[in-house]
Amino acid sequence: MNLRIPGPTPCPPEVLQAQARQMVNHRGVEFANLIGRVTQRLQQVFQTKGDVFALTSSGTGAMEAIVVNTLSPGDRVLALSCGAFGERFADISKAYGADVQRLDFPWGSPVDPEQVQLALRKDTSIMAIQVVHNETSTGVTNPLRDIAAVAREYEKLLLVDAVSSLGSLYLPVDAWGCDAVATASQKGFMAPPGLGLVAMEPRAWEANAHARMPRYYLDLGKAKGFLAKKQTPWTPAVSTYFALDVALEMMLKEGLASIVERHASVAQQAREGVKALGLSLLAENESYASNTVTAVRCPEGIDCDKLLRAMLDRGVELAEGQAKLAGKIFRIGHLGYVSENDITGVLEALEETLVALGFKVKAGAPARRD
Amino acid sequence: MNLRIPGPTPCPPEVLQAQARQMVNHRGVEFANLIGRVTQRLQQVFQTKGDVFALTSSGTGAMEAIVVNTLSPGDRVLALSCGAFGERFADISKAYGADVQRLDFPWGSPVDPEQVQLALRKDTSIMAIQVVHNETSTGVTNPLRDIAAVAREYEKLLLVDAVSSLGSLYLPVDAWGCDAVATASQKGFMAPPGLGLVAMEPRAWEANAHARMPRYYLDLGKAKGFLAKKQTPWTPAVSTYFALDVALEMMLKEGLASIVERHASVAQQAREGVKALGLSLLAENESYASNTVTAVRCPEGIDCDKLLRAMLDRGVELAEGQAKLAGKIFRIGHLGYVSENDITGVLEALEETLVALGFKVKAGAPARRD
Repeated sequence: MNLRIPGPTPCPPEVLQAQARQMVNHRGVEFANLIGRVTQRLQQVFQTKGDVFALTSSGTGAMEAIVVNTLSPGDRVLALSCGAFGERFADISKAYGADVQRLDFPWGSPVDPEQVQLALRKDTSIMAIQVVHNETSTGVTNPLRDIAAVAREYEKLLLVDAVSSLGSLYLPVDAWGCDAVATASQKGFMAPPGLGLVAMEPRAWEANAHARMPRYYLDLGKAKGFLAKKQTPWTPAVSTYFALDVALEMMLKEGLASIVERHASVAQQAREGVKALGLSLLAENESYASNTVTAVRCPEGIDCDKLLRAMLDRGVELAEGQAKLAGKIFRIGHLGYVSENDITGVLEALEETLVALGFKVKAGAPARRD
Repeated sequence: MNLRIPGPTPCPPEVLQAQARQMVNHRGVEFANLIGRVTQRLQQVFQTKGDVFALTSSGTGAMEAIVVNTLSPGDRVLALSCGAFGERFADISKAYGADVQRLDFPWGSPVDPEQVQLALRKDTSIMAIQVVHNETSTGVTNPLRDIAAVAREYEKLLLVDAVSSLGSLYLPVDAWGCDAVATASQKGFMAPPGLGLVAMEPRAWEANAHARMPRYYLDLGKAKGFLAKKQTPWTPAVSTYFALDVALEMMLKEGLASIVERHASVAQQAREGVKALGLSLLAENESYASNTVTAVRCPEGIDCDKLLRAMLDRGVELAEGQAKLAGKIFRIGHLGYVSENDITGVLEALEETLVALGFKVKAGAPARRD
């Protein structure tokens, strides 16, 4: 199966095989060495000198960790949203009692940094901004660098959901001035799901000193204390650590710049391919179309579920639309362990499927390679 | 390495190898079938008709889940404790604002159900009881059946940490009347760490309807909604699910009664073996000594760290003492994938180590098999 959903993503065989290793003592010397190595490699990928933790959780757990470790109930938070994950991020803060001010943008468009600036000028009680770098539900990448610049100018804490971006898109955490960043092992990292990855920068730790949201399992203060002795507070997902260790080694061997370039290249191939078939993207403008997931409008007269099932029959698994986009779009995941051949396979199957469903594909579609 | 710590425990090769499988869509048909099968098998092992969830977390995450999904800040809770994990359980409730009333018992002794009854009579404002079935830090198994009977008599919600008991010790969740039970994949289940396992019984769901502790990642209401369509709210630890699926199949093939008997047998072998060497158990009375972990007093004049390091050199990894027992005891884990040979190996290495460290082992110790 050509699994082309935006996570869990396929893993290289050597990453999967690393999980077949027998258990080790999670408080022993061998695992301490592994934690030390994984942490240092994560810092390289995050491009940060700050603390990076691998929590036994999904990406949502990592998002919750950066919220509950930096905020207090009642804190006024500006939650930027242009899709389902922006909403989720806002919902997490709300669940823990933050005073959430939503700033919504149309699904298919990015967050506008100027409007963020206006919102901060209008409401000086806002103390933190939360934003999704890459909105997986719409295939839109937000201008995080500019949003971070606004956060720095107005001295607001910046919490970033980088679940479907970090490790695939350019995101130098320190250089851009992000304060807390959440991602997960099963996206750009070519590893199985099970580890939520979190960066905490100095300003986030300052906030942490006063943050009173309740936390225990996801307490990053405890995680920091244990990381000092190369341990985790609770039993970690040992097998997933083995896998992540191998995946990180492969990533750093390929090099961050090459990885970013590879994602840009396969994403362009995907976008050009679907357009050549006569389909259109959900992202209104390609300048902000995501390089990790492409959201494609289901053409009129074609049943989206039927299309996805027919693709499955052809050995390609795509993702459906989420929330209000259900039945309206389908999504092609192209992040992590992905190459040109994978996308060619998607486009070929898509052309066959569309033809079979009676859609008039454009002549000479470049996907076709007979 | 003969890994004999109380978790992560060694896994059968076929369980580990299951993790080498490629990723699948966590919202696809294949994974739905797997979730359905795993859930049904977990219900068999928990001996419950209630809901059972596999959360992507450690056992501590599972403990937190049963607290935050059944209680509200200010709720008066009776936290029974006779060791480090009883304290942890109390700390979780405290972190989320419960009004925790601790009832402590000496480390090495079990919880006394009569004192629980007295406490409930004295303080009628208590609404929930939390107890650790098997105290991993001291090698003591609490009389859960009797404690549950008291909880039922006084109509209090009973939250159970069964992390190092369920799947190894006899624990029929429904028959004993436990309301919410937490355990984890890496203990009795012979699987790698990464999945926190939680049972929620009808009374726990009744409590859930009014429970106001904040939660998002560990929200079992959300988990229940998604389980109805054989999904999880967030991306699950797919590889660990693969492993747990295989491990559960092996467990049910062996049979719950046989598993309980095997644990009783290797535990007795461990206890008799260490006593024959002239060592003494931390558990004051063998009637409540745990069948999953044996805590052994470090003999006078022997440095406990040195002993553990010397055991490592002989290929046996034991666990140290936790908190106030550090340096005073060592612990032999014998749960999950464990057989008589494993314990024989521990006892042989222990005898050699003690002799090498100058301890006068008893003559004719049965561990010796020259």
